[in-house]
Amino acid sequence: MGDDATMLSIVTSANIACGGHASDPDTMFKTLALAAKHGVTVGAHPGYNDREGFGRRVIPMAPEEIAHMVAAQIGALIGVAALVPVKVSYVKPHGALANLAAADDRVATAIASAICKIDPGLAVLAISGTAFEDAAKAAGLDTYSEIFADRGYLSTGHLVPRGHPEAMIHDAKIAADRLISMLKTGLMPVIDGDPIKLDAHSICVHGDGPEAVSMAREIRSRLESAGITLAGFATR
Amino acid sequence: MGDDATMLSIVTSANIACGGHASDPDTMFKTLALAAKHGVTVGAHPGYNDREGFGRRVIPMAPEEIAHMVAAQIGALIGVAALVPVKVSYVKPHGALANLAAADDRVATAIASAICKIDPGLAVLAISGTAFEDAAKAAGLDTYSEIFADRGYLSTGHLVPRGHPEAMIHDAKIAADRLISMLKTGLMPVIDGDPIKLDAHSICVHGDGPEAVSMAREIRSRLESAGITLAGFATR
Amino acid sequence: MGDDATMLSIVTSANIACGGHASDPDTMFKTLALAAKHGVTVGAHPGYNDREGFGRRVIPMAPEEIAHMVAAQIGALIGVAALVPVKVSYVKPHGALANLAAADDRVATAIASAICKIDPGLAVLAISGTAFEDAAKAAGLDTYSEIFADRGYLSTGHLVPRGHPEAMIHDAKIAADRLISMLKTGLMPVIDGDPIKLDAHSICVHGDGPEAVSMAREIRSRLESAGITLAGFATR
Amino acid sequence: MGDDATMLSIVTSANIACGGHASDPDTMFKTLALAAKHGVTVGAHPGYNDREGFGRRVIPMAPEEIAHMVAAQIGALIGVAALVPVKVSYVKPHGALANLAAADDRVATAIASAICKIDPGLAVLAISGTAFEDAAKAAGLDTYSEIFADRGYLSTGHLVPRGHPEAMIHDAKIAADRLISMLKTGLMPVIDGDPIKLDAHSICVHGDGPEAVSMAREIRSRLESAGITLAGFATR
Repeated sequence: MGDDATMLSIVTSANIACGGHASDPDTMFKTLALAAKHGVTVGAHPGYNDREGFGRRVIPMAPEEIAHMVAAQIGALIGVAALVPVKVSYVKPHGALANLAAADDRVATAIASAICKIDPGLAVLAISGTAFEDAAKAAGLDTYSEIFADRGYLSTGHLVPRGHPEAMIHDAKIAADRLISMLKTGLMPVIDGDPIKLDAHSICVHGDGPEAVSMAREIRSRLESAGITLAGFATR
Repeated sequence: MGDDATMLSIVTSANIACGGHASDPDTMFKTLALAAKHGVTVGAHPGYNDREGFGRRVIPMAPEEIAHMVAAQIGALIGVAALVPVKVSYVKPHGALANLAAADDRVATAIASAICKIDPGLAVLAISGTAFEDAAKAAGLDTYSEIFADRGYLSTGHLVPRGHPEAMIHDAKIAADRLISMLKTGLMPVIDGDPIKLDAHSICVHGDGPEAVSMAREIRSRLESAGITLAGFATR
Repeated sequence: MGDDATMLSIVTSANIACGGHASDPDTMFKTLALAAKHGVTVGAHPGYNDREGFGRRVIPMAPEEIAHMVAAQIGALIGVAALVPVKVSYVKPHGALANLAAADDRVATAIASAICKIDPGLAVLAISGTAFEDAAKAAGLDTYSEIFADRGYLSTGHLVPRGHPEAMIHDAKIAADRLISMLKTGLMPVIDGDPIKLDAHSICVHGDGPEAVSMAREIRSRLESAGITLAGFATR
Repeated sequence: MGDDATMLSIVTSANIACGGHASDPDTMFKTLALAAKHGVTVGAHPGYNDREGFGRRVIPMAPEEIAHMVAAQIGALIGVAALVPVKVSYVKPHGALANLAAADDRVATAIASAICKIDPGLAVLAISGTAFEDAAKAAGLDTYSEIFADRGYLSTGHLVPRGHPEAMIHDAKIAADRLISMLKTGLMPVIDGDPIKLDAHSICVHGDGPEAVSMAREIRSRLESAGITLAGFATR
């Protein structure tokens, strides 16, 4: 929680695990209370109910089973958030579930439909050009595009796969330079061609790992120096 | 689920486990869908997060930890119920958590307050004269009193403890006779004195055990023959 | 446990879940004690650590991760068995793990090697012609072949897939006729050609399902009437 | 695992969680492999099956239920240890289970008896003068006494309860001074009277917390400078 406390003083929105791949009601409460204290916009971060795999393994499930699982997790976070109280404003799936939802129309639709039934005022955070972005928009949900501060991109708009030498950007200064340029021009550099146009409503930095806090601080500070105002994305 | 399906065709309200002591999102959905199909009023049935003990063991927790746990479970059920859709109308704690809430003011207040923050329109099902009934009323929640069809009572209003030869009533006819008399007179027979006055908004029959369905059928049929109308208790 | 008690009075060996896809230390102890009481040979039945899916879903894991999981489960059962005391004589993987081990050499070898390191005197129960049978034999483990009393076969030696009208044999008399003929001739009838030669050291009947006990009783009785002696397979 | 790796290069024996209050088969394997690499004596560290409470809450269980749980956990660790391979040499209960075993004869006897049935060559690590030490000795198990480097003592031999200002010793130098004096004289200073005689076969330092490594290093270095040889305690 030490790092969470610092991260929550830097970011403008936070994806909070809901007891599936991680967390429990007490940890949810503490994180939600910290987010509320710092005025951070709160998102539900549902994932496979698989702690040993931290939600990074695909568990074979039918789309409707995924919908039930996601609904229970979003509901659990909303339940605990009511005690703070703080509003849960958006949903962003985690790990292997997010990857599957990005690629599989039926899973994407099942999740988007579940979100809509729970609360049509919930927004969705998705990657540009994915099945999940399409499904969320089709369901009438406010949909925001997310870019990653610390990942390289391909000309297809996909991330450079982990394992490739240009997959990760470890230097906070380089990451910040890229972001500022990208936010000014709307063009993201890619490793295999000309820069591509990408929507960017939200910039993801990871909360775990030893450089999490310094990366987040550097990016926030550089963006602000460049005259860019950071804000939790608007929600209904 | 076979017995659940039959039980849900007999009862007027159902306490549904929320993934703590039992159930999972898929099972919640199936039970909620059956309840909706039969027009049964749905209640959340939170319990200790202890499957091996089926929620029948007290897990030492601070009242605020209990509040977080209960909120996550109620929220999870509300989340899944939104997919059916069906409304979650009331809350009734399960097992060791219910016993503790009946006796401990701080736990009772923590649970009642959590329910109120999640949705002040949720009703509460409690046993007459317990700390939990008092806390629910103090929190401004609609509070209904529950009696047990198959348990003997003491003059204090408490149940005859399990283990005592008169603790359980196994004969459905005798149970029905007692109920009809009690509902007409407002007086519950006790094993150690004169009948006592008890409120009775809801009659609990257990959904597990081999005689569950026949007990529920007999009681419903006998109450209806006696001109008593059964209905899900009114909720906001 | 009611059905388990009856089943354990009929069978000669029992695959006992080890806390992965099902069971817990208390249930393991009760089942092991019943098996010991009836002189039933005990096998460890490890499966994916996935209760919601009852071990019937493939959880993506590296072969060495599977080996660690299987070792922990076999060890847990051996630990509890020591309290009865009763010997754990063999290992048979469960569900999706068994299917994967049957088809994937690396998984088969990882499991066989783990069994061997835990106790080279443990036998293995496998389906004829699978990767797991090969790996167990290559590891020097005593390896027994299992046939299914209630499943149709293909000329490849594989089971008729579930969903096909001839996948399941529901009639205990027909199942018993097939078995007696098969045990006398060594030839198993198949749905798509001439009967095939199959080794049969063990006959599997499922312990769950409403017909489990009657199927097991009929098969035992008919085999005994046919002069066939049933015995727990020999173990070191 | 970073800190575990360093700690395992300093200590001579390690209590390894078995999947109850913490750990999983993969983590067990990694920790066991590190212990084997560094020649560290391995002990099983069973605790309540309660991850949310990290084994620090008493879960109401009958002594025989505790025996089943402990046996499953010790067995699981032995199973995984066979893959390294490394020997599991002793057992030390964790947290609330250890406290209960120290005080309750029936729990102490149930655990000691379970250990003995699993392997009578397993040693036990216990606190001097507790019910668990007595039960382990009565069961014929090799029993070693443990003292705590970082805790104050009372004249009764019990630890100063957490919360008391003298409960914890945070200064590694002071802790080392006390230990060296104690090991030379056999007398442990107490906060409420004259030093008391205590057996000390093992010195416990905690593996978690930010000062774990520096405390362990200081104590090892100071003990060695004082001419004291550290060794994993002898096991059968």
